[in-house]
Amino acid sequence: MDKNRRQFLRNIALGTGVLGTGLPALATEWGVTDESMAFSSDQEKKGQVFNMSGYAAPKLDVVRIGVIGLGQRGSEAVERLSYIDGVEIVALCDKYPDRVTASQKTLEKMKRPRGREFSGEEGWKALCENNDIDLVYTPTPWHLHTPIAVYAMKHGKHAATEVPAAKTLDECWELVETSEKTKKHCMMLENCCYDFFELLTLNMVRNGMFGEVLHVEGAYIHDLSKDWLFNKNAYADMWRLKENATRNGNLYPTHGLGPVAQCLNINRGDRMDHMVSMSTDDFSLGKMADDLTVNDAFFAAFTGKNYRGNMNTSLIRTILGKTMMIQHDVSSPRPYSRIHVVSGTKGSAGKWPSPERISFGHSWIKKEALEDLYKKYSPPIVNHIGAIAKDVGGHGGMDFIMDWRLIDCLRNGLALDQDVYDAAAWSSIGPLSERSVAKKSRTVDIPDFTRGSWSSNKPVDLSLNGGATTGVRAVKPDLKM
Amino acid sequence: MDKNRRQFLRNIALGTGVLGTGLPALATEWGVTDESMAFSSDQEKKGQVFNMSGYAAPKLDVVRIGVIGLGQRGSEAVERLSYIDGVEIVALCDKYPDRVTASQKTLEKMKRPRGREFSGEEGWKALCENNDIDLVYTPTPWHLHTPIAVYAMKHGKHAATEVPAAKTLDECWELVETSEKTKKHCMMLENCCYDFFELLTLNMVRNGMFGEVLHVEGAYIHDLSKDWLFNKNAYADMWRLKENATRNGNLYPTHGLGPVAQCLNINRGDRMDHMVSMSTDDFSLGKMADDLTVNDAFFAAFTGKNYRGNMNTSLIRTILGKTMMIQHDVSSPRPYSRIHVVSGTKGSAGKWPSPERISFGHSWIKKEALEDLYKKYSPPIVNHIGAIAKDVGGHGGMDFIMDWRLIDCLRNGLALDQDVYDAAAWSSIGPLSERSVAKKSRTVDIPDFTRGSWSSNKPVDLSLNGGATTGVRAVKPDLKM
Repeated sequence: MDKNRRQFLRNIALGTGVLGTGLPALATEWGVTDESMAFSSDQEKKGQVFNMSGYAAPKLDVVRIGVIGLGQRGSEAVERLSYIDGVEIVALCDKYPDRVTASQKTLEKMKRPRGREFSGEEGWKALCENNDIDLVYTPTPWHLHTPIAVYAMKHGKHAATEVPAAKTLDECWELVETSEKTKKHCMMLENCCYDFFELLTLNMVRNGMFGEVLHVEGAYIHDLSKDWLFNKNAYADMWRLKENATRNGNLYPTHGLGPVAQCLNINRGDRMDHMVSMSTDDFSLGKMADDLTVNDAFFAAFTGKNYRGNMNTSLIRTILGKTMMIQHDVSSPRPYSRIHVVSGTKGSAGKWPSPERISFGHSWIKKEALEDLYKKYSPPIVNHIGAIAKDVGGHGGMDFIMDWRLIDCLRNGLALDQDVYDAAAWSSIGPLSERSVAKKSRTVDIPDFTRGSWSSNKPVDLSLNGGATTGVRAVKPDLKM
Repeated sequence: MDKNRRQFLRNIALGTGVLGTGLPALATEWGVTDESMAFSSDQEKKGQVFNMSGYAAPKLDVVRIGVIGLGQRGSEAVERLSYIDGVEIVALCDKYPDRVTASQKTLEKMKRPRGREFSGEEGWKALCENNDIDLVYTPTPWHLHTPIAVYAMKHGKHAATEVPAAKTLDECWELVETSEKTKKHCMMLENCCYDFFELLTLNMVRNGMFGEVLHVEGAYIHDLSKDWLFNKNAYADMWRLKENATRNGNLYPTHGLGPVAQCLNINRGDRMDHMVSMSTDDFSLGKMADDLTVNDAFFAAFTGKNYRGNMNTSLIRTILGKTMMIQHDVSSPRPYSRIHVVSGTKGSAGKWPSPERISFGHSWIKKEALEDLYKKYSPPIVNHIGAIAKDVGGHGGMDFIMDWRLIDCLRNGLALDQDVYDAAAWSSIGPLSERSVAKKSRTVDIPDFTRGSWSSNKPVDLSLNGGATTGVRAVKPDLKM
């Protein structure tokens, strides 16, 4: 009988109130921990090896990049990164060699040297084992994000990984421990933190314009069902459909969460403490699989699955008493929305649905006033690189701002905006929401991946513009800085 | 040792998983019930005395009304009701006699006979004890809603009560039991169910235009802090500020919840099963009390209180696997919002922020298409009474549509749109959210106030227009039907 159970039975004897369950227990407000949470709790107790928040790695004059994962997202990244000065794309890797070939053509078009080629199931390992790479940039299917980032850091590379950085709590901790031990950056590529309205509201928060921010909202509401999840030519090996058929929760929390987490200084003055999560049943994906199977036996493998409920809503409470509402729906025919609500004691902001809106009282400010705010409160990086970013593209420019900022930090020896604790904490909402959903929305504690340093870590440097030493290559005439 | 505890200890002996707590236990998914929930559970087991859902009381040629509570909301009701044919306002009651006098003047202005007068702490009892009243209409402070409705029903009157109908679960059950025993209607005056966009989307749901509705949202986001809660001339005896200083949860859930509950056929084919609720800390009300006290000692009584967290978000799951998100914030400087989101397998709708929006795919339909939908799918009541309602006013017309419909149902012997189960279930989210918030957002079961009849109860008749026998008096030239 372990200590928790003894304490529990003593409580019964004392008549202090009890609660029975036929289900395995989760960590909760009462401090009872079961096997499935033990790993996390042990990790928290161990204490930080080294604080990667605010850590500046030695400057790199040139950032030599290996890109792993050359599907749609990865091939776009190869092109975007090619615009940035001080970048060399020295290696390209994908499970499928034809995708590597396609990205070589992109490099050629961008007047860049060809990269070394890696492919097959284990190609990413071979890439990471090379000595002439500084940064491994990973837009692969989700299940490879942590294995690749960890392997890269262990082989002396910084890691930049697509979202979510991890699928399980164990993976979250593995990222944290590896980054601390190797002193290599592990940045999750949360591009939505670099969108224009998100940058504006973050800077306004920093300037106290909304007063004390007390509640925020974010979402990933994007109907992927017909054109993406069930499209044989979209996600390799139907990996994303499989995720939705086997896991129920908020599988993709970070696009909505990242920007509002920065507004609340999560891991940098405040911390996500606990959460609850609720999903609907599935009312469409199972039916879609059935319908497609009528004419194409390929889809039979996707029938009879326990599909993720269409809509998931998660509520998170912070140590300082703020709340976050995060939603996820990739299978209902709704207009795209990341919501992005910031609510404070002096004002509020919201983005979806359009138009973008800000209030300092009981009504939204006029369009002209919003334009003035954009002029006054967009962080310096927007003036520096915003126009070029819009031209290069990538979700309206935010992808390029993110890439440029990452490279600029590495070249100037600056701390990254998103450290490994952000990657772990933001990603952990995925597996934690699964746990809560599986237990009828039960309260689940959120691990402190900073192991205490959250209270003294400093917020992101919002100039987002270190030395301004990094230029953009004049591949197109209008892209010269 | 009661049966639950015996079962619970047997579970421990079997090692099926346990959870200890120093806090009093709540009813949860595991069926363990403590004292505070015992009343509810016992009530559910007892079974329905008589099913009031769909119940049509005997026709009333004239509806003789006593109005109790003549503050702003009540005095407006006196005027609105005065426009309706077949209504006699025979009695007026308020704690304060001057308010009764003011409403007599309203009746005079409306060319209506004076009503009998009741005042003082117990005036409402004396009113209910009269024999010439058919309907007691109650816009009082919240704590009097259930006592008055119950007393009215026990004295042979139908009860119409402002929102929320009840503050505690015991009160919810008292309403249900009294209505069933007396066969008197107990309608909660949820006016937002009669707003134009809400009626449109409800009728579109009925017509299957959004497919299967799987997720809905509602809210009451309305900054009452400075002008209402802390205004000595607003709520009598500062009652609403006191509510916010002593209770933490969603104190006022029904405006957002009512319309979307009707979209999901709650209590009429589906049922709210369980919920979780999370509040922020208070970041403004306590400070406002402190600040006001500097210049006015009156407010000292409101300092040092445990104010309700500014924002509360509650998640509700139904038996059929749908979810509802309901928010409440009356103390942040945000533009007014009831949200009203309806999300289905074929489309979605949303109201706040403006403009009203509907989609049947990945983008919102155009303004002209929305106007067409209004023409085609507004329920008949809107054509019948909508224009007059806008003219009479009361939150843009919805108050008058509600009043007219109530009177028309009573005069034609029709079932009411909102029965006592709706009043109880919608109101119960208040006390249930308090319980969840107090226990770190723990999952709380929602009682089945219909005691099983939810699965066979019929949805509201959406013509909302029984015999069309009830006219509107030509007090103003433009109000003749």
